[in-house]
Amino acid sequence: MAPGSRIDTKVADRVKEIATGLYGDQAPEITFHPQCFLLSGHFAGDDAARTKAFLEIANDESFQALWFARGGYGACRLVESLIPELTDGARGKLYLGYSDAGSLLAALYKEGYAGLAHGPMPADITREGGKAAVERGLAYLVDRAPDALEASVPAGARTAAFNIKILGHLLGTPFQPDLTGHVLMLEEVSEYMYAIDRTLCQITSNPGIKKVAGIRLGRCSAIPDNEPDFGQTEEEVARYWCARSGIPYLGRADIGHDIDNKVVPFGGLGSV
Amino acid sequence: MAPGSRIDTKVADRVKEIATGLYGDQAPEITFHPQCFLLSGHFAGDDAARTKAFLEIANDESFQALWFARGGYGACRLVESLIPELTDGARGKLYLGYSDAGSLLAALYKEGYAGLAHGPMPADITREGGKAAVERGLAYLVDRAPDALEASVPAGARTAAFNIKILGHLLGTPFQPDLTGHVLMLEEVSEYMYAIDRTLCQITSNPGIKKVAGIRLGRCSAIPDNEPDFGQTEEEVARYWCARSGIPYLGRADIGHDIDNKVVPFGGLGSV
Repeated sequence: MAPGSRIDTKVADRVKEIATGLYGDQAPEITFHPQCFLLSGHFAGDDAARTKAFLEIANDESFQALWFARGGYGACRLVESLIPELTDGARGKLYLGYSDAGSLLAALYKEGYAGLAHGPMPADITREGGKAAVERGLAYLVDRAPDALEASVPAGARTAAFNIKILGHLLGTPFQPDLTGHVLMLEEVSEYMYAIDRTLCQITSNPGIKKVAGIRLGRCSAIPDNEPDFGQTEEEVARYWCARSGIPYLGRADIGHDIDNKVVPFGGLGSV
Repeated sequence: MAPGSRIDTKVADRVKEIATGLYGDQAPEITFHPQCFLLSGHFAGDDAARTKAFLEIANDESFQALWFARGGYGACRLVESLIPELTDGARGKLYLGYSDAGSLLAALYKEGYAGLAHGPMPADITREGGKAAVERGLAYLVDRAPDALEASVPAGARTAAFNIKILGHLLGTPFQPDLTGHVLMLEEVSEYMYAIDRTLCQITSNPGIKKVAGIRLGRCSAIPDNEPDFGQTEEEVARYWCARSGIPYLGRADIGHDIDNKVVPFGGLGSV
């Protein structure tokens, strides 16, 4: 299902082709909920349609995974009404997505769900070379393939990953998850460097976030030019806020809004 | 002083001319701290220079007001180091500004300061017709002129006003002020409608903000076009989030990033 923006039916067709190409007769059955293709203003259907689609898949024990189809914007609108409607069937499956879908991953993590992961989505097929990202997502969903994982994940720490602005918008809400002791990986796309700086100021001054084991910085891509130039790179900005807040800066993370985006399980390997 | 971006010396000259034009021999002495004209990457001088300028004016009892020169970006970087350095001299004066300066107004309000207000700044002179905004700012600083106030302020409620994204970035930080019982006025500029929606989702789900007496929506200007169109106006979005969160929607507020921006004292008239 698509919690924010819609996808085209071509995306669904290509993803199924890729699954068949990879696994042949053993290919997983992939169901794209019809809601994925709806259009209601900015969204893939209105809030009620997106909520219903999420619950129909999440609560149905016959589905082994809920693969978020695309980011965009809209997941945060669903969280409050979704959470009370989840049944036990929702706990036993994988959830994979990133970007805007991070709002739902966060809320489910706060509810104690295992099986949540930040990683590729079907809509990544629209990127040049996007087949690699979709194959990686499938490899994780079907086989928990170790080479789909972000390289630092196997070291065994609890992990979580977010888009920087999505995490910023979770702070101070009832859906902010407890990331104590986690390696927190952060990535961004299409934001001005001053806006990245501003959100990292917020994130690193949050008392809950200060309890993370450290921060790894993913890729920050398509940063618009600004006049005057901000004068610092994203890594300088991340190092600055980590140093200032006393949060260990642990280096780069292999995640981002691109085809190389690796999988980061929420809670680390122990939780999947 | 300028807590974020720099101003040109012409701005300072024009503002002094306007003060002389209005008050003649009785014109207030306006000191533009030299820091206002510095340039360090994105900022009006580095963090240390901006912090020093703020403290030199705030802590000096011979100044009756600290008028933030301009918004832009950078105030949030100063808050943590400023607060412990403030002396009693800082409590007895007015502070006027908006936009990015809201980060500092919020932190000072949390510290129990009276005399804080959201309203015009010297840099507004660069807007077409900006003289009216600067004159309004002066009328408030010099005379607490009632006609400088936002129209709902004299009704007597406790009030506060913020730029929407600046308030979003304050949530979950140690500098989020207690706005219990306040009429909260919110304005925005140059943000996509989906981004306004997302930040209002965050704001109205924050447990502290839920205690406000109600929300008034200021102007949301220069909203970039988006594909697909969001399909709702800013007032529809504000009404939606107020209804959903149980916060009373009280109508429009006469504030915004424009020359008609009226003054909103933090805490209401009782606090100035």
